[in-house]
Amino acid sequence: MNDITRSLVQYVLESKPEDIPASVLKDAKRSLINFLGCSIGGAQHETVEKLLAATQPFSGPEQAAVLGHTERLDILSAALVNGTSSAVLDFDATQAKKTNIHPSGPTAPVCLALAELTPISGKDFLHAFILGVEIECRIANTVFGSTNPGWHVTSVCGGFGAAAAAGRMLGLTEQQLIWAFGIAANQAGGIRENYGTMVKSFAPGTAARNGLSAALMAQQGFVSDEHALEGSKGFAIAMTGKDDLNELTENLGKDFEISYNTYKAFACGIVTHATVDGCVQLRNEHNLSQEQIVRVSLKVSHNTLLLTGKEKPSTGLEGKFSVYHAAAVALIDGTASEAQFTDERVHNPDVTALRNCVQAEAVDGIGKYEAFIAIDLDDGTTLEKHITHALGSLDNPMGDEDVAAKYRELVSGILPDDQSEALIDLCWSIDTLENAGNIARAAAKK
Amino acid sequence: MNDITRSLVQYVLESKPEDIPASVLKDAKRSLINFLGCSIGGAQHETVEKLLAATQPFSGPEQAAVLGHTERLDILSAALVNGTSSAVLDFDATQAKKTNIHPSGPTAPVCLALAELTPISGKDFLHAFILGVEIECRIANTVFGSTNPGWHVTSVCGGFGAAAAAGRMLGLTEQQLIWAFGIAANQAGGIRENYGTMVKSFAPGTAARNGLSAALMAQQGFVSDEHALEGSKGFAIAMTGKDDLNELTENLGKDFEISYNTYKAFACGIVTHATVDGCVQLRNEHNLSQEQIVRVSLKVSHNTLLLTGKEKPSTGLEGKFSVYHAAAVALIDGTASEAQFTDERVHNPDVTALRNCVQAEAVDGIGKYEAFIAIDLDDGTTLEKHITHALGSLDNPMGDEDVAAKYRELVSGILPDDQSEALIDLCWSIDTLENAGNIARAAAKK
Repeated sequence: MNDITRSLVQYVLESKPEDIPASVLKDAKRSLINFLGCSIGGAQHETVEKLLAATQPFSGPEQAAVLGHTERLDILSAALVNGTSSAVLDFDATQAKKTNIHPSGPTAPVCLALAELTPISGKDFLHAFILGVEIECRIANTVFGSTNPGWHVTSVCGGFGAAAAAGRMLGLTEQQLIWAFGIAANQAGGIRENYGTMVKSFAPGTAARNGLSAALMAQQGFVSDEHALEGSKGFAIAMTGKDDLNELTENLGKDFEISYNTYKAFACGIVTHATVDGCVQLRNEHNLSQEQIVRVSLKVSHNTLLLTGKEKPSTGLEGKFSVYHAAAVALIDGTASEAQFTDERVHNPDVTALRNCVQAEAVDGIGKYEAFIAIDLDDGTTLEKHITHALGSLDNPMGDEDVAAKYRELVSGILPDDQSEALIDLCWSIDTLENAGNIARAAAKK
Repeated sequence: MNDITRSLVQYVLESKPEDIPASVLKDAKRSLINFLGCSIGGAQHETVEKLLAATQPFSGPEQAAVLGHTERLDILSAALVNGTSSAVLDFDATQAKKTNIHPSGPTAPVCLALAELTPISGKDFLHAFILGVEIECRIANTVFGSTNPGWHVTSVCGGFGAAAAAGRMLGLTEQQLIWAFGIAANQAGGIRENYGTMVKSFAPGTAARNGLSAALMAQQGFVSDEHALEGSKGFAIAMTGKDDLNELTENLGKDFEISYNTYKAFACGIVTHATVDGCVQLRNEHNLSQEQIVRVSLKVSHNTLLLTGKEKPSTGLEGKFSVYHAAAVALIDGTASEAQFTDERVHNPDVTALRNCVQAEAVDGIGKYEAFIAIDLDDGTTLEKHITHALGSLDNPMGDEDVAAKYRELVSGILPDDQSEALIDLCWSIDTLENAGNIARAAAKK
C-alpha cells in the first residue's frame, strides 16, 4: 500500500499561488462565475426553498450568505444550501475528462463560507478553490473512470475537494488534513438512483457541508485512518474495487483539472448536448417546422442513454434527463434553456407529440459529446448531422463572453443589474481583491 | 423491480404499538438502557469532546440535550453527538444475526432529540425506536449478510433506521417517508478503513443526524427517487451488487430484529468476546499468574482476525480491535472493561510481554461467538478451553440485572447516583411515561 492520501495532502499544503499558471487562474475565474450564475439563478427553485425550510430552524449563527437570498446561516448550513442551489438548474460546469463530475458545487460554497468567517485574499481564495477542484477530479478520474455500479460521482468525490479547499484555507497541518480526508471518506455517498429528483442537487451540497465539517473536526484533532483513499477497506475498494491508485498523482502540479471544466451551453444533462446542438443546427439550416418532421433517429453514446434515457419525462427536472425531450424542444424552440425544462413544457401537447417521434440508439464508439442525428421529413427526404464536439465542450468551448452572458441571463431578475455587474467584476479581478468574503456578500440579496 | 422501499415504509407507518409483543418491548427497554449507559459513560471521551468543539460554534437553537453534558444543541447536532458518544467505548448493543450492526446508535438519539422538541408518550417513543432498529437491521442482513467490500454496516444502514424512527414520530405520510428513505440513501457512507479510529464512533452519529434530517426534509416535500433501496442504480446495487432484496420483508411484523440485540459483556470488539470469556475462565479456574504462561494459541473465526487482527495496538482504542491485547488483559486482569483499553494499559510492559506470546489463527467453520483457547504453561502442560457461546451472546445472554449493572458502572462518576437511578427507572417504566422527552433531560448533566 502506498501513501496516496498523504501525497495528495502534501501537494495541497505545499502548492504556492505563484505555481498556478495564468491560464489556470483564468479557468478558475470562469468556473467561479459560472458557479455563481448557477447558484443565484437557482436560488428560488423549489428544491432550494424546501431545503432552506428544513435547514433554517436548526441552523446556528448567521455567519455566511445564502446566495441569491437575504437569509444568513452558519457556515456549514450555508455551504449545504449553496452547493445545492448550484445544481438545481443542471447548468453547472462539467469536468470533461473521464467522468461527468461537476466540481464547483462541492468546493466553491466552502471557499465562500469560510471567506466570510475569516478574511482571506482573493488570490488565496482562488488558489484554495483550484486545489479543491484538483483533488476531487483526480479521485473521480482514477476511481470512477472505468467502473461505477451506481455512484453519483460529484457526490462521492466532492467531499474530498471540499475538505482540501477548507483545509488549505484553515491552515491545517499535514496530519490534520490527512484526518480531514479520512473523515470526508466516511461520509462519501450518493447514488445515481436519485438522478432526476431534488436529491441529485442536494448531493453537491452535502459534499460541501461534509468536507467543510471534516476539516473543522480535523482542526480539533479528530483522528481518522491515514489511508482513507487507498486502504484495503478504504474508499476506492469499497466504491469500485479499484486497488491501483497511482494515476491519482500523475502530473500533479503540472496538469490542472480545473482547465478541463466545460460550461454547459444547454440547461440539460451534458450527454444530451451534442443532440441538442445538432437539432438546433438542422432546424435553423433548413428552417424546419414541427409539421414536417416524421421521425428523429439518434445514435448516441452508451452513457447518453444510461444517464438521460428517460423516454416519458413527467416533470421539467426529468426532462433535463431525457435526450428525447431535449431533441424535441431543440427542434421546436431552437434552444434548450431553462424555459424548455419546465413542467408545463414537458406536458405541452406539441412537445409530447414530437418527443414520441424520437428514437435513440446507443452505439459503441460514440463519444459523450458526439451524436448522429437523422430526421425523416414528410416529403420522404432525410436530413443528417454528425456532431463531433458539442457547443460548450472542451474542443468547442464557450468563451469568456459566452460565460459572462450565461451568468447575466441566470442572475437577471434575481439580483439587480448593477449588483450583478459588480459581482462579476469582483470575480474577474479577484487576484487583487483584499477580502474574498466580499464576493459572498455581493452574491446575497439585499 | 419490486417495491421493497414502499413495503418497508408502509410497515413503519401501519404498525401499531399493540402489535409489539411484550417480550419485544422488554428487549427495547434493555437496548435503550444499554444505549444510555454507553452514551453517558462515553460522554467525556476525547472523541466526543473534540466533536463537540467542532460542532458547537455552528449549532442552532438549544433544542436537545447532549447526554452526560450540560450543553444543549439543535436536534440535528444533538443526534450527531449522542450517536457518536454511544460508540466511543465500543460497548453498545450488537445485533447477532448476520452482521455486527450496532442498531441503537443511529436511532435512539433521533428519538430522544425529537421527543424533546415535540412531546410524545413513552409508548410511542419506544415503538418508533423498535421500528427504526427493525429497518436498519433488515437492510444490514439482506444487503451485507454475505458480501461486503469494506462498508461499515452500522454507518451505511443506520440512516434508514434513523429516518424510519423520525418519520414515525413526525407523522410523515407514506410518500414523505419514501422520500426520507431516498434522501437517507444518498448520504449512506462509512468505510471499515476507519475502524480503530475516532471516525468509527462518528459514523452512528452521522447516520442519526442524516436520517433525522432526511425525515425533516421529506416533511417539507423534498423529493427523492422512490426505489432508493432496490433500484437498478440504488443503494443495494451500489454497495454490494445485491439485486434480490425479497428477504428484506420476510416475517415483517412477526419476527422483531431488536430481540436479536446482544449487550456486550466486554469493552472490546464483539468478535473477541469468546476469547476473552475463555481466557478469564481459564485464569480463574487455574488461578493462573502471568509468569506461568509461555504461549497462548487461539483458533478463531475469520471475522475475528479480519476485524480485530491488530497484533501491536498503539492506543487504547486500537487495543479494543486487537484479539491479542484482549486475550492478554483477560489473562492478567481477569476482565476486559474500560480500564483494560486505555493507552497506558496498551503500553504496559507486562501486557505487551504477554500480548507478544499470543498467536491467533482463523479457521473455517468457527462461529463469531466461538473460540478455541490453548495455553502452554512453563511446566509443560497445556490448558484448553472451547467457548461455544461467549457471555453476552444470544445463547448466553446478559440478564436484566447484568444490563442494569453494566449501565450503573458506565454512568457512575458522570451522573450522580440518584440521577442515574431515576433515569433507569424512567426507562423500565417507559410504557406509562407521558412525556418521553423527560428521559433525554434526565440523561443530561445538571
